[in-house]
Amino acid sequence: MALEKLTFNIQPLSNDLNEALKFEINHKTKPLGSLGQLERIAYQLGRIQQSVQLRLSKPTVVLVGADHGICAQGVSPCPQELTWQQMKNFAKKGGGIGLFANLYKLDMLTIDAGVDYHFSKEDKVEDYKIRNGSRDFSIEPAMTTVECRQAMENGAAIVSKLYNKGCNVIAFGEMGIGNTSPASVLMSQLCNIPLDACVGAGSGLDATGIQHKLKVLNAAISKHGTFEDPFHTLACYGGLEIATICGGILKAAELKMLYINDGFIITSALLVAHAMYPEVLDYTIFSHQSNEGGHKHMISYMKGEPILNLDLRLGEGTGAAMAYPIIQGAVEMMNKMTTFTQANVTDTTKKGITVL
Amino acid sequence: MALEKLTFNIQPLSNDLNEALKFEINHKTKPLGSLGQLERIAYQLGRIQQSVQLRLSKPTVVLVGADHGICAQGVSPCPQELTWQQMKNFAKKGGGIGLFANLYKLDMLTIDAGVDYHFSKEDKVEDYKIRNGSRDFSIEPAMTTVECRQAMENGAAIVSKLYNKGCNVIAFGEMGIGNTSPASVLMSQLCNIPLDACVGAGSGLDATGIQHKLKVLNAAISKHGTFEDPFHTLACYGGLEIATICGGILKAAELKMLYINDGFIITSALLVAHAMYPEVLDYTIFSHQSNEGGHKHMISYMKGEPILNLDLRLGEGTGAAMAYPIIQGAVEMMNKMTTFTQANVTDTTKKGITVL
Repeated sequence: MALEKLTFNIQPLSNDLNEALKFEINHKTKPLGSLGQLERIAYQLGRIQQSVQLRLSKPTVVLVGADHGICAQGVSPCPQELTWQQMKNFAKKGGGIGLFANLYKLDMLTIDAGVDYHFSKEDKVEDYKIRNGSRDFSIEPAMTTVECRQAMENGAAIVSKLYNKGCNVIAFGEMGIGNTSPASVLMSQLCNIPLDACVGAGSGLDATGIQHKLKVLNAAISKHGTFEDPFHTLACYGGLEIATICGGILKAAELKMLYINDGFIITSALLVAHAMYPEVLDYTIFSHQSNEGGHKHMISYMKGEPILNLDLRLGEGTGAAMAYPIIQGAVEMMNKMTTFTQANVTDTTKKGITVL
Repeated sequence: MALEKLTFNIQPLSNDLNEALKFEINHKTKPLGSLGQLERIAYQLGRIQQSVQLRLSKPTVVLVGADHGICAQGVSPCPQELTWQQMKNFAKKGGGIGLFANLYKLDMLTIDAGVDYHFSKEDKVEDYKIRNGSRDFSIEPAMTTVECRQAMENGAAIVSKLYNKGCNVIAFGEMGIGNTSPASVLMSQLCNIPLDACVGAGSGLDATGIQHKLKVLNAAISKHGTFEDPFHTLACYGGLEIATICGGILKAAELKMLYINDGFIITSALLVAHAMYPEVLDYTIFSHQSNEGGHKHMISYMKGEPILNLDLRLGEGTGAAMAYPIIQGAVEMMNKMTTFTQANVTDTTKKGITVL
């Protein structure tokens, strides 16, 4: 049976409102262009929402966890049990993302896409498990195409459900010991960058550990080769949380939601989504640049401009959460900052250079 | 009558709690060092407050406005009336800072240190006016030493009052058409950087305008020369808002408050404070790096690490306000993030590299 291709209807942004948005932003009581990145965010969101009045509704971080067979090859310094332990911790708002979601007033979901553990109902981890972790891709593909497609469909379904509840802005977080390995291979394959520039310390490998990881991943690529289409690349070298998130990102773009991108792992899911549908970037804001080596290259491959550069490498969606108040600032500027006329302030819009 | 020197009792930070703070931060449930800049902020605040439980209380942005005699030389593309118009606008929460103070839940004061306008009581601009604008320092010193000292005392008094009301974290904003001129000269004099690297577009000068501004400021420096002590540099080349803010920063450090530094103008006030008392940096967090050319050099002169780089050049304290949620994140991590033991998560603190 041939696998039916999973498709998304992602529209490029309309240009209809571009001039109206620029006029509105440029006539606020401030030197032209002086709110820099905030003006660019407001402009992008205005184009997404096709309105000069912007709206952020029920912002949600979807934290997706899974385990990785590749861990059997000693590519992570951390024990795999951390995945399920942390998922329980996150669901109780004990970890980084629970904390920041609470602080910045973001809703949060904790999703099991393939954790090697049986959660009980009290754990409050939602069950979208495909299997107890992806396969060891140094031996066989991480997922079958059927599993990978199902994971993507799950991600899309999670996002649709949020959309139907009124959410229009979304971020993803991840938890999965060993998941810098699939992310590094996806990066190397999709950006066509040599693997050694894509492999970093992850959650704390030393130089010897990094060399070992590189060797394992290089052997895996030699074994399976390079695929023409991003879906098969994802199935072979990805992970269950990455595939789930990839489907979720694409559905968010289809539904014209704002998507706030996070760190290294999440960006590998975006790379796959982008390879399938380049227009997904129209709906994407890059929240931060992490200090995991390859992240900078991933972002510049997609010509992104990260809002924050805080030397983070926690994952969990924490960087996206931290960027949220800045996005709120952009919306506030657009919706509430007075124009020169409203404020009885001398109009200076002819001076200076706009950033738009 | 000789001018009695205004002094502050600014203590360097104690090292007593350094190890306890590092232990606490390193045992949170996250890879070592993975919260980067947030860990550094928490560590600094812990050293300031000498506690592993941190506290942000009544955060306040003090927006100080003044006019500048140097405007008579055509150094700004904006009409001077913008100063008083915007001060009224800010006090009504219509401008950038009013908006962001509201969004990020910061208190805000609007202070007249020397605006060329008579505010009425209804304007809600607090009166600390020394005179209707500083003098044209292309002709004579911007302030007499008596005026400059009085402005510094006013700043110190404003901060003391806030401290007595329970505030322990403070930022300054500024409004004053033409004030990139004094800031540029202060920078050149105090950092010993040639003036042309210190002069930028301000609120929107074109290349010809920048050349003219440079010529005017160079002539002023030739006329008055270089002073040995920062106080006389401030009096000659500063402005009433800059002197007020300088006094405020020093008092905040004396009172062991956290001081959040803002953009180009505010940083020129910090440069003066730093030249008087280098320990002031112990209490300082650099909120952002603006895109006014010289700001980067000012910050690196003081070895600061800006939290945000959003291409801002609005002033008003907006960059400091935007960094506040990140500082809150650092405090939240310190106060509420579970340790490995509390969360029943396998301790991985021996792996990886701490940022502290």
